[in-house]
Amino acid sequence: MFKKILVANRGEIAMRIIRACRELNIPTVAIYSEADSTGIYVKKADEAYQVGPGPVKGFLDGPQIVALAKRVGADAIHPGYGFLAENAEFASLCQASDLTFIGPSPQAIHLMGNKVEARKLAESVGVPIVPGTEGGISDVREGLRFAQKIGYPVIIKASAGGGGRGLRVVRSDDELRDQMDTCSREALASFGDGSIFIEKYIERPHHIEFQILGDRHGNIIHLGERDCSIQRRHQKLIEIAPSLVLTPALREEMGAAAARLAKAVDYDNAGTVEFLLDQEGRYYFIEMNPRVQVEHTVTEQITAIDIVRAQITIAAGEPLDVTQSDVHFIAYAIQCRINAEDPKNNFRPCTGTVTAYLSPGGIGVRIDGAVYKDYTISPYYDPLLAKLTVRGRTWEETVSRMHRSLEEYVLRGVKTTIPYMKAIMQDPDFREGRFDTSYIETHPQLLDYEETIEPEDLVLAISAAIAAHEGL
Amino acid sequence: MFKKILVANRGEIAMRIIRACRELNIPTVAIYSEADSTGIYVKKADEAYQVGPGPVKGFLDGPQIVALAKRVGADAIHPGYGFLAENAEFASLCQASDLTFIGPSPQAIHLMGNKVEARKLAESVGVPIVPGTEGGISDVREGLRFAQKIGYPVIIKASAGGGGRGLRVVRSDDELRDQMDTCSREALASFGDGSIFIEKYIERPHHIEFQILGDRHGNIIHLGERDCSIQRRHQKLIEIAPSLVLTPALREEMGAAAARLAKAVDYDNAGTVEFLLDQEGRYYFIEMNPRVQVEHTVTEQITAIDIVRAQITIAAGEPLDVTQSDVHFIAYAIQCRINAEDPKNNFRPCTGTVTAYLSPGGIGVRIDGAVYKDYTISPYYDPLLAKLTVRGRTWEETVSRMHRSLEEYVLRGVKTTIPYMKAIMQDPDFREGRFDTSYIETHPQLLDYEETIEPEDLVLAISAAIAAHEGL
Repeated sequence: MFKKILVANRGEIAMRIIRACRELNIPTVAIYSEADSTGIYVKKADEAYQVGPGPVKGFLDGPQIVALAKRVGADAIHPGYGFLAENAEFASLCQASDLTFIGPSPQAIHLMGNKVEARKLAESVGVPIVPGTEGGISDVREGLRFAQKIGYPVIIKASAGGGGRGLRVVRSDDELRDQMDTCSREALASFGDGSIFIEKYIERPHHIEFQILGDRHGNIIHLGERDCSIQRRHQKLIEIAPSLVLTPALREEMGAAAARLAKAVDYDNAGTVEFLLDQEGRYYFIEMNPRVQVEHTVTEQITAIDIVRAQITIAAGEPLDVTQSDVHFIAYAIQCRINAEDPKNNFRPCTGTVTAYLSPGGIGVRIDGAVYKDYTISPYYDPLLAKLTVRGRTWEETVSRMHRSLEEYVLRGVKTTIPYMKAIMQDPDFREGRFDTSYIETHPQLLDYEETIEPEDLVLAISAAIAAHEGL
Repeated sequence: MFKKILVANRGEIAMRIIRACRELNIPTVAIYSEADSTGIYVKKADEAYQVGPGPVKGFLDGPQIVALAKRVGADAIHPGYGFLAENAEFASLCQASDLTFIGPSPQAIHLMGNKVEARKLAESVGVPIVPGTEGGISDVREGLRFAQKIGYPVIIKASAGGGGRGLRVVRSDDELRDQMDTCSREALASFGDGSIFIEKYIERPHHIEFQILGDRHGNIIHLGERDCSIQRRHQKLIEIAPSLVLTPALREEMGAAAARLAKAVDYDNAGTVEFLLDQEGRYYFIEMNPRVQVEHTVTEQITAIDIVRAQITIAAGEPLDVTQSDVHFIAYAIQCRINAEDPKNNFRPCTGTVTAYLSPGGIGVRIDGAVYKDYTISPYYDPLLAKLTVRGRTWEETVSRMHRSLEEYVLRGVKTTIPYMKAIMQDPDFREGRFDTSYIETHPQLLDYEETIEPEDLVLAISAAIAAHEGL
């Protein structure tokens, strides 16, 4: 086992890794910036060193981090998510410096970072991808043949397009005939390139991802899926396990597909295979994330398997101590991201100092926080303050428990996503499982929540007003 | 379902019940004494009323509580544990007042409250009890015959004895011959009554208890066992599920015995059947507790079944929604009682005000607390501040997780059991599962922990010293 692990990250994921290390009795080294020296993870690590310059560069400076690790006698680095987690060059640098990178091989990271290569690989092992023409087409009859083959609706995209321009969703031969020429002409006019291609249009899909664990002895298992459909502009807000829309047969099929893909790149460590699932139950590979995900907690809550611990033991060369048939799903879990954001103001990140903090508790409640009373939220980082994950025996119980936990959560001094999440937990569509990736934009009324004013805050405000009035 | 539930308790169990009610969308009524008006459960209930007089009497005054329930429109009362929870008269009074008592029938409470009756009932349905002579004996040959039948060691007890006097543990025919006469003579001299009886002496047993759930439709299941052997003077400190010493066959047998006993009294609601388990794997019924237990959390953590929610739905007449074959144990769980006590000072209860509070988090950690920053601990109640329950996939992982969580726990301003619990989690005997009811008294060295002084407390102390020195 490792002698000392350097945690090349900050915030809640640094806390998560430090906790796993403590449970494995491995000393930890934290890094922090000048702007983040009061982070709770800095206090919880056995050693902590400032990196820089500035608030962010130090977390991205592979050579600086490797040099620090060597200097303090660490023999492994956990990158968390973000920053250097999917940087194949950094993984190689660790390897070259005789440090274990706690994650997959540089080769696997590199391959999965190339979406075209990953898509080809998936196809080669029989994992479905979103069907599309290989290259540009111009002939209407060719377009019709292809669209009929893959079925409507399809989306016409200008090869040179981008940012949503030059896109047309069509739902019949007639529409395709009408739009193909128009689209091509517009593309020529807009981009100087009239070539177009056609892809299957997945309407209101679910975002379904499978958690993979692979060891360095060729064992690969999956820990079931997460439904991460509740997103705003591709940022996940709420994650669920298991999905409410997968049948056991589909779960088995998609899980096997995910494991097959991982096997094809000799994947080891934790990873996630992401799919779109359409309304008819067809699934399509999108990408594989070669790291631990923010939402790994929901999988842990329903399987009792510690994914970060597994990352460390796998990286140390230990074989997996569970087989596929040991993995059982015993509950439902929901994670809400408690972000320092103002949902009413287009989710703008907020800063401030936490003036009161008391996390919810009781049955089925898990908090992964990096926040405490007096903590100051700076503008430099991801707005994620804490992850609230709850577990329940049924979906209804789990949603009610999440609502109860959000109500209990005391986190004052900064605006957060808590009241918005409460509104979602009370929404009949959400409660009855009617949600997909269009949920946030099709439910704008959920932003009409009332901001509650805490009695204490009111007293403070009144005192301040009186003081101002009296000229004190 | 109930329109409104009055919670006839305080502290963490009141919070526990209020949480379950919130998740079921049932409004709650709290009661509090003048001494406990800042309890967090008081704030979390929908309504709260002071009862009295004094700090305790109001919680024990059945007629006052029933009258309040009627006045505020509650239709059910949850008694929690302690106070009125095992008071058959109170349960009857509720019934007579058209209020649902959330617990078993007055008849079941009454029967289980009578240890002699309960023991007879157990025997009648083939549940083993600690073997003993029916009444007093005086003849040595009779004593020898009985001792040989039940096996050594046996304990000779003076019928009129008490407080540990007149007890003799003997391990052979010779010793029994020697001691029976002596014991009888001493008893005659001490108590004026020379009659003695002989009972099987259970050496260093495990305390094993089975969680029962029964509904009002005749369904009774068990949720497996808890090992509550870690006790000091019969006060449980640490509870574990599942037990490390039960084989699957023994679990099934004891579970069936517990369910059989519950069936024999037409038991409904949650209850616990307690056994002693000797070093040879023989078990003996001690008593049945007709209420939710402090340590129900460990069972919830390994089964995902919400016991307090089940109490409420059962009392509302709903059938159990799980059968025995639905109950699976997916992990290990440990609960540590975080008491305001000084273990070094013979566990003397401590009072004070909480000056800083941050509960542990992360994977597998559950807090059932009734404490927060600025909460004042009064001398009138049970010293239980919070229950820290952790879950892990293996025993080793669970113990490490508990140690990590105890290390994380910030609870300042009052002495607690936290440092003592940390010492236990590091003890090789505990870690390797070598413990029984003698553990606390046979491991006095665990009390030699160092009291850590928090850096902040040190700074405060130094500032205070400097201020005093400077005469400020």
